Amino acid sequence: MARLKLGMVGGGQGAFIGAVHRIAARIDNEWELVAGALSSDPERARASGADLGLDPARVYGSYQDMARAEAARPDGIDAVAIVTPNHMHAGPAVAFLRAGINVICDKPLAATADQAAEIESAVRETGKHFILTHNYTGYPLIRQARQMVAEGALGTLRLVHVEYVQDWLTEETHNKQADWRTDPARSGAGGCVGDIGTHAYNLASFVTGLHATSLSADLDAFVPGRQVDDNVHVMLRYPGGAKGMLWASQVAVGNENALRLRVHGTRGGLEWAQENPNVMTFTRFGEPKQILTRGGAGAIGAGIEGTRVPPGHPEGYLEGFATIYRDAASIIRGTATPPAPGIGEGIEGMRFIAACIASSRSDAAWTAL
Amino acid sequence: MARLKLGMVGGGQGAFIGAVHRIAARIDNEWELVAGALSSDPERARASGADLGLDPARVYGSYQDMARAEAARPDGIDAVAIVTPNHMHAGPAVAFLRAGINVICDKPLAATADQAAEIESAVRETGKHFILTHNYTGYPLIRQARQMVAEGALGTLRLVHVEYVQDWLTEETHNKQADWRTDPARSGAGGCVGDIGTHAYNLASFVTGLHATSLSADLDAFVPGRQVDDNVHVMLRYPGGAKGMLWASQVAVGNENALRLRVHGTRGGLEWAQENPNVMTFTRFGEPKQILTRGGAGAIGAGIEGTRVPPGHPEGYLEGFATIYRDAASIIRGTATPPAPGIGEGIEGMRFIAACIASSRSDAAWTAL
Amino acid sequence: MARLKLGMVGGGQGAFIGAVHRIAARIDNEWELVAGALSSDPERARASGADLGLDPARVYGSYQDMARAEAARPDGIDAVAIVTPNHMHAGPAVAFLRAGINVICDKPLAATADQAAEIESAVRETGKHFILTHNYTGYPLIRQARQMVAEGALGTLRLVHVEYVQDWLTEETHNKQADWRTDPARSGAGGCVGDIGTHAYNLASFVTGLHATSLSADLDAFVPGRQVDDNVHVMLRYPGGAKGMLWASQVAVGNENALRLRVHGTRGGLEWAQENPNVMTFTRFGEPKQILTRGGAGAIGAGIEGTRVPPGHPEGYLEGFATIYRDAASIIRGTATPPAPGIGEGIEGMRFIAACIASSRSDAAWTAL
Amino acid sequence: MARLKLGMVGGGQGAFIGAVHRIAARIDNEWELVAGALSSDPERARASGADLGLDPARVYGSYQDMARAEAARPDGIDAVAIVTPNHMHAGPAVAFLRAGINVICDKPLAATADQAAEIESAVRETGKHFILTHNYTGYPLIRQARQMVAEGALGTLRLVHVEYVQDWLTEETHNKQADWRTDPARSGAGGCVGDIGTHAYNLASFVTGLHATSLSADLDAFVPGRQVDDNVHVMLRYPGGAKGMLWASQVAVGNENALRLRVHGTRGGLEWAQENPNVMTFTRFGEPKQILTRGGAGAIGAGIEGTRVPPGHPEGYLEGFATIYRDAASIIRGTATPPAPGIGEGIEGMRFIAACIASSRSDAAWTAL
Repeated sequence: MARLKLGMVGGGQGAFIGAVHRIAARIDNEWELVAGALSSDPERARASGADLGLDPARVYGSYQDMARAEAARPDGIDAVAIVTPNHMHAGPAVAFLRAGINVICDKPLAATADQAAEIESAVRETGKHFILTHNYTGYPLIRQARQMVAEGALGTLRLVHVEYVQDWLTEETHNKQADWRTDPARSGAGGCVGDIGTHAYNLASFVTGLHATSLSADLDAFVPGRQVDDNVHVMLRYPGGAKGMLWASQVAVGNENALRLRVHGTRGGLEWAQENPNVMTFTRFGEPKQILTRGGAGAIGAGIEGTRVPPGHPEGYLEGFATIYRDAASIIRGTATPPAPGIGEGIEGMRFIAACIASSRSDAAWTAL
Repeated sequence: MARLKLGMVGGGQGAFIGAVHRIAARIDNEWELVAGALSSDPERARASGADLGLDPARVYGSYQDMARAEAARPDGIDAVAIVTPNHMHAGPAVAFLRAGINVICDKPLAATADQAAEIESAVRETGKHFILTHNYTGYPLIRQARQMVAEGALGTLRLVHVEYVQDWLTEETHNKQADWRTDPARSGAGGCVGDIGTHAYNLASFVTGLHATSLSADLDAFVPGRQVDDNVHVMLRYPGGAKGMLWASQVAVGNENALRLRVHGTRGGLEWAQENPNVMTFTRFGEPKQILTRGGAGAIGAGIEGTRVPPGHPEGYLEGFATIYRDAASIIRGTATPPAPGIGEGIEGMRFIAACIASSRSDAAWTAL
Repeated sequence: MARLKLGMVGGGQGAFIGAVHRIAARIDNEWELVAGALSSDPERARASGADLGLDPARVYGSYQDMARAEAARPDGIDAVAIVTPNHMHAGPAVAFLRAGINVICDKPLAATADQAAEIESAVRETGKHFILTHNYTGYPLIRQARQMVAEGALGTLRLVHVEYVQDWLTEETHNKQADWRTDPARSGAGGCVGDIGTHAYNLASFVTGLHATSLSADLDAFVPGRQVDDNVHVMLRYPGGAKGMLWASQVAVGNENALRLRVHGTRGGLEWAQENPNVMTFTRFGEPKQILTRGGAGAIGAGIEGTRVPPGHPEGYLEGFATIYRDAASIIRGTATPPAPGIGEGIEGMRFIAACIASSRSDAAWTAL
Repeated sequence: MARLKLGMVGGGQGAFIGAVHRIAARIDNEWELVAGALSSDPERARASGADLGLDPARVYGSYQDMARAEAARPDGIDAVAIVTPNHMHAGPAVAFLRAGINVICDKPLAATADQAAEIESAVRETGKHFILTHNYTGYPLIRQARQMVAEGALGTLRLVHVEYVQDWLTEETHNKQADWRTDPARSGAGGCVGDIGTHAYNLASFVTGLHATSLSADLDAFVPGRQVDDNVHVMLRYPGGAKGMLWASQVAVGNENALRLRVHGTRGGLEWAQENPNVMTFTRFGEPKQILTRGGAGAIGAGIEGTRVPPGHPEGYLEGFATIYRDAASIIRGTATPPAPGIGEGIEGMRFIAACIASSRSDAAWTAL
């Protein structure tokens, strides 16, 4: 089967997440990068395109040009990856969707609710595919956990505990990554809550199938002068009475990317941590705890499908991310309907951010999502 | 030095925590059990005394008799251990204190605020010693963590995360231990929050030196028909702006006694878990995480004092409990002033329970402690 | 039931293992220390006895006096604990046995084969009980592992891997503990192999029921000038074709008391490590690995009998040691026949040391045990 | 920079390691697969080429044809990846080398010493590059460990312990992977020792810089009827007096790909395990153990160069493998001299296998490598 053609907005020299998207797109050989509006600086855009071996004719100075030109080409791109800071998602997303081109977009969906609504409208009106790279949903054991919950292995869910803690913003920090993430004009009103809180919330929803009805949030900006939150405490209420806690932090010294999920129901409990993602523990009430490995003994459908190497040979972050790209290919080709996050998850993430900020400003009052 | 003489109220045949107290009292050879009102059932009291090899003349049918008689003896007990259910703490505590006898009391302090106040008054008025067996404060690494925080190794504290999760009450359960703990008449209004939530709150305070000013709590009784909470979610606010989260549960399948503390400050972070208490991780911001072992490389004063065997030879729950008994001996002898929990911690624990219940009944409104 | 009366040889001021024995003897309240020949220095013997609150009349200047006097008393000791360096085991062991007194002796059995043979003869001829404190056999999960193997949970055993590694002798070291352990006149010809290699070998035998027929050993004294081995590599052959590897070291930087056992058979495998002894993993071939906890879900007879506190409340080194003392009490009282190590294990340990040394001197030639 | 052109011998439909090589070659975008002799079955070769989107003109029916034709093309391949069973390495390796084409070859080097010698001669005589995919050497922390040892962080090395244990051949097993690995005609005389023992030996050498002078090996075929070893016990002697132990097994129930390395020197020790390869512990004698993470605090040159994503986002097996391909590209381009294993390591691996088999047949006599 021929590879799909991918374009990219953002991701030029010096960027981080663009390179991750490109590796992820390559791993399963379903995508070929052929076009880009890689930087808002035309010189850097050109140089970045050359670095990546792109045909200079498909290295664009603006996403508007790119959307127009690629839509017009008979061999135009099948999808565009948008890997710009949050405030720069809506413009290109809408432009490409309205040009008839599918979109793969970094999270969170946008910097503001208005931007998010624009994207949502464009998705609805165009009927094009929209994939949001909540990449942690691509880990095989996360897929397996989702299936286990859905099949009732945990019974009726009671408790959801999710945390995503880092320490890289413990002190005032200035670099390309830190600067836009702590600037409300670019990140949106949420700092930590938008950057990693949304990942945590999304992961919990993905696995449990639960969507919070309301939350109580206490947000802090611990570093003096910081304009957005760097620590997030949330209590969650889910339909049917399940309860949750969510902690996100960028100032928890000693943590790198400590995303961890625990789910407990009437009949079982499971626990998974992103930093060693090939292992999950599962306990049936009254029985010994089991260590489930990616693809190992006891693995089930959804946990095996995503697997590229045998158990005991760790897959990591890039493979999980690659699964989102493989999902996107399947969706665009129409060959399968994998559970990759999309516009719905994007909108829910925006509501989560907004509810956290609103609740925190109201002394942690319960706030509907 | 001669051993101190210990009496016990409760802890007769079939009891659990009484036996733990007795082992803890024996380990360092500072105490000798010589008297008891071991059961409210006179026959069981007698049989239990015989099992323990007590002089029949010092096996009493009621704690009132025991307090009176022991106070009158020239060789009367130096302290009494009260190991009854919560609603039965105040009676004996007050009786012994007023008889001039020091008290070592199980936690939480009492079943009601009134009972707690009675005990507090008796302690103040008599000037006798009162030790509350928040035994987890006896672990050597917890003592070391406390010293590290006090000495500034973590900088200014920002975050406190503590949890104590179990699964033994996941389903409706009937046995001696479960029955009184889920009966508000005996446990007090708090179920899980009183039984283990107080341990978690106390441990966090012991290590950090922080006392919450207010909290927001969401309590649940997940098991149908249960009259007290079996799951506790709390957000905490500490003086100076530090924030915390506390989770206590008796329905988290796959957990035995998963008491875990994490503390983060401007300069460092540490993490400890009770189920493997001889290990703690500590990170100075920007440096590799260290694994600190009980008494091992990098150990400091408070973490070494409590140590009975060399690093790599695990000490456990009973040794931690024994440290509280050793502390009690030092306090009563006047030879040292170890940080064993006392009436202050007991009152704070009662306030914590009350605030959690009040907050939860007010939809998790912030409630002063 | 009245407590048994214990005497002690060695264990005076400044000693280490004597204090461990005393705590272990107290924990289950089956023993009362009433007599001692605590030091070969009469002044220190007296002072040590006073420290321990012994009746001065039962504080002896020599083990010979003590054996004679205690044997003559109507209330004489039921057993003596011998906690001296290796070369000082045989003298008191034989004296007490021949005086009709049971012996609890530290390991290894003796410093030389001749001494070991004398003890063995005395045990056989007197019929008194002889317990060797291979204390690691007292851990509940080790008892459970032994039962699991015996019941066939692992199928036919194929592989035994055991290691006991420390780092405290990485450099030339001088203190009371190091001095006698590195002096062949006091420790015997084996250094590391006798001190901890025997523990490793014994633990493997205890769990598997296998006794090596021959071994190939490569011993080193890495620290310049050291007169005994400080690192031990052994390949083992067991009856029926099972094979093993054993590593013992006192120079493996970063290890405290890393005693670890792995056993694999045709149907299952298990793994246990002393530094976190309340956890063991067990895998049935083709099924997920299970985490078995002390007394937790899936616990069986032998793993529960030894348990003092519920699962999730760790028991440690002292409790494991106490189980040996409880076993000794049961054996002496004749109330049970627990599997505490005795003279047979002592003799096998001496053969193991001798075979390792002989093999190593012959370029690791296979040597019968 | 333009991508290098890769050909592949083996790796057709149903193969395992070929797909791994292809992903590894794609990850860093340094390679493009353009040609293949993917199967000895012409029909399968054609179909496999079509699956991979190869130009049919470059899908060959034999490696001989491919070597000849690619050497003749102006746009011929820069290197060929040989991913056939062991006995099929030498033929294509020699053919491509002599055709002037660089070779990337799976390990072990060959099935027999003669085949290995042929390859070695061809490498020497042609001067072409030869890379052996001992892929575990591509893990960033392994690179870092190698640098730490070389820089003296561990002092003078004393001890090397390496193991690679699996359980997939615990019982008689028949599938494509098992069949050739247990058939001496295809795997060579070594089974487990060649398949994974060589990985273990190589990893230890790569990190320590030590090459064993002699070894004593005890090999077993535990499964009835198995014609090659499935368990390997080895004691190692290194120049300068360092000692080692190596265990490789395919019958250790409960293990997937448990490759684990421990190295101890006069000043420090480190420990790493492949199944969670983003973490390594390091201890300086007398200091607390440190947890070093891939690219995290304390990371040094060689451990950072290989890194694609930030610390806390795990890289896995495929990324480690990809590093070997990136190394190969650098070597072929002449832009760097990374430490990818080559013909020397291949020959040493063959000597290791031969020495293990010879030693084991001589009752584990010490045998020179």
